[in-house]
Amino acid sequence: RINGERLWDSLMEMAKIGPGIAGGNNRQTLTDEDSEGRHLFQKWCEAAGCTMGVDEIGNMFARREGTDPDALPVYVGSHLDTQPTGGKYDGVLGVLGGLEILRTLNDLDIKTKHPIVVTNWTNEEGTRYAPAMLASGVFAGKHALDWANDRVDADGKRFGDELERIGWKGEEKVGDRKMHAFFELHIEQGPILEAEGKDIGVVTHGQGLRWIECTVTGKESHTGSTPMHMRKNAGRGLALVTELVHEIAMKNQPNAVGAIGHIDVYPNSRNIIPGKVVFTVDMRTHLLDKLNAMVAEFNERAPKLCEEIGVEFSCEIVGQFDPPAFDEGCVKAVRDAAERLGYSHMDIVSGAGHDACWINDIYPTAMVMCPCVDGLSHNEAEEISPEWAAAGTDVLFHAVVETAEI
Amino acid sequence: RINGERLWDSLMEMAKIGPGIAGGNNRQTLTDEDSEGRHLFQKWCEAAGCTMGVDEIGNMFARREGTDPDALPVYVGSHLDTQPTGGKYDGVLGVLGGLEILRTLNDLDIKTKHPIVVTNWTNEEGTRYAPAMLASGVFAGKHALDWANDRVDADGKRFGDELERIGWKGEEKVGDRKMHAFFELHIEQGPILEAEGKDIGVVTHGQGLRWIECTVTGKESHTGSTPMHMRKNAGRGLALVTELVHEIAMKNQPNAVGAIGHIDVYPNSRNIIPGKVVFTVDMRTHLLDKLNAMVAEFNERAPKLCEEIGVEFSCEIVGQFDPPAFDEGCVKAVRDAAERLGYSHMDIVSGAGHDACWINDIYPTAMVMCPCVDGLSHNEAEEISPEWAAAGTDVLFHAVVETAEI
Ligand SMILES: NC(=O)NCCC(=O)O
Ligand SMILES: NC(=O)NCCC(=O)O
Repeated sequence: RINGERLWDSLMEMAKIGPGIAGGNNRQTLTDEDSEGRHLFQKWCEAAGCTMGVDEIGNMFARREGTDPDALPVYVGSHLDTQPTGGKYDGVLGVLGGLEILRTLNDLDIKTKHPIVVTNWTNEEGTRYAPAMLASGVFAGKHALDWANDRVDADGKRFGDELERIGWKGEEKVGDRKMHAFFELHIEQGPILEAEGKDIGVVTHGQGLRWIECTVTGKESHTGSTPMHMRKNAGRGLALVTELVHEIAMKNQPNAVGAIGHIDVYPNSRNIIPGKVVFTVDMRTHLLDKLNAMVAEFNERAPKLCEEIGVEFSCEIVGQFDPPAFDEGCVKAVRDAAERLGYSHMDIVSGAGHDACWINDIYPTAMVMCPCVDGLSHNEAEEISPEWAAAGTDVLFHAVVETAEI
Repeated sequence: RINGERLWDSLMEMAKIGPGIAGGNNRQTLTDEDSEGRHLFQKWCEAAGCTMGVDEIGNMFARREGTDPDALPVYVGSHLDTQPTGGKYDGVLGVLGGLEILRTLNDLDIKTKHPIVVTNWTNEEGTRYAPAMLASGVFAGKHALDWANDRVDADGKRFGDELERIGWKGEEKVGDRKMHAFFELHIEQGPILEAEGKDIGVVTHGQGLRWIECTVTGKESHTGSTPMHMRKNAGRGLALVTELVHEIAMKNQPNAVGAIGHIDVYPNSRNIIPGKVVFTVDMRTHLLDKLNAMVAEFNERAPKLCEEIGVEFSCEIVGQFDPPAFDEGCVKAVRDAAERLGYSHMDIVSGAGHDACWINDIYPTAMVMCPCVDGLSHNEAEEISPEWAAAGTDVLFHAVVETAEI
């Protein structure tokens, strides 16, 4: 069993970097706080006897050697970046849980045949730079490195420039590493495990996702002196599309979701009718056909709704992945570990996207989930218990060591 | 007649300060650009032989002496501040038109019995600091000076601090001046005069306004892993209220308007369901009973719509004025001037709020309007012809000189 107290202390220590305003964290990718979090993680890894590799997109790889020089490493990890109003566990648990495995192996003086590498993937959240899981996506060959470097944030700052600025652009070519397997521990971010009273979610599948960035164009004009029949109010386009997204998600129940989280209004003045609104639709389900049908319905109806009120609609996909099915062998390793350790468990579909979804495309992958209070995540009030964290990390430990062979 | 070419040159010269990105202006109140515009106006006034007074809220008063030491001055003016994406004429025409009157009187070596004072009112637009017409409102006793100084912009900067920072806080007590009458020339900002083919609008009334700042509170959570039935999506509250405002305006046709121009979404991340949306509703009509009925319907239905989808609604009034009826004598002076000069004219209701609306509460006041292309304003593409500008200023000139007596 891992050392739950040490794990918890490390989680609390990391949470001091980039504190939020309501008990959570604001440690967005490629900020000074992200850099500080990385330094702390590196210090801990080196203290645990690891060597640290960093690739050209800032992914970090802390390696504990194995006994067989020819054996590919077993990778384990997640991300240290957070939402602007994020929790202390989303991503962090998976990275520090990986570190706790190495510390436990050191305590027990266990050597594995395969090396074990703990990873921190850059920009998982995708808030500052869309899409989410950007760096694991480049690693898996889904995006070109140059394209990733050219992403810009809301202030027009390039991803590549910000990575250099914080000092975490490494030398290693992205995706050069070969993996024996990859495991990711993550909080559920949804309500199912808590409601079912299970300690462990054995993640068999994930939802697919489409992020559709929409622009509604009307005409800026005076809110007071422009007669109603002469208005082209882009804000009404946003309103109609907001309800359309909700309607499409509702009629695809169960197991489908849709919402708009990000909205920018131009010029955003109390007495100017919005001339332009830019916003991102987020639609998900774990069934590929359903996902495609939802997007097709959206693409058909959104422009019509806007046309009817005299505003223009255009959109482009800024993030997407199809529903992943995780590797049967790795999933079994997780389920067996939970069983062996006596934790209550159930198979589950991941509602959120994870770096594991991309890595799953190229190497055998699986995920372990633990419950979180009220299913709440992407909120500073995100909470888990030390027992849940320890149980998840125990299962991760057993699945990884089983796969890395003693 | 005034010198139309000189007037146009001054308009173009002022437009060089705080240029926009699409041919218009961004010279928002209490910015460095606002200060620069004020210095240019002061320089021109002093060259025309005026003395300049500035009050504690930054209102500027350029005075040309009259022949009767006991006669109260006739005031004329508007505002030099603009929207973030504003035009070159909204407000500016009324200030520089006033200056042109003084220059013409100098050319013709005419002395008036009453002094004439050209005014630049601080923060008419109300974008950076709500409400609009803030400083004329303080002058007219509608707001306390301390309250005005405590207004904050989106960055948390206080109005009073910014006024001192740009160096335009004067010594004069706000509202100490007495007026014989006040005249304001302004572009229509609507389509009526152009459509009717009239050179001059004789403004008899104005619309009343309510600015209602609304906060919809839901619960921030993950867009992917939060099941639909557990969501509290504040963005849907915005959507329903957007359509409610439109519906209320439409059913009060003709002569009623409503829209939402300003929207802030929290935390505004692609994969976080909005936990809070703050936005400002703008509703207007020139009939007080109708205005009150529109607001009453809004206050009744908006909270219910939000309640039905599980989000909370609260609101407060952040700007308001009742529909003004301008002074009969001053209105007649404007109508007679247009008639005498042979300009086509019609009586008109102002769609926008103006400093004249507040001053009308304390001294005899009237407004002159000239057409603008396509009725477009609060848009960088706002346009007028030099002939319209000259005609409006000619009428202003005659109405003012008639009132100031030769
Ligand atoms: N786990 C997580 O919140 N990832 C961000 C990508 C997503 O929106 O699902
Ligand atoms: N004239 C003008 O646009 N004033 C701003 C106040 C308003 O919104 O009517």
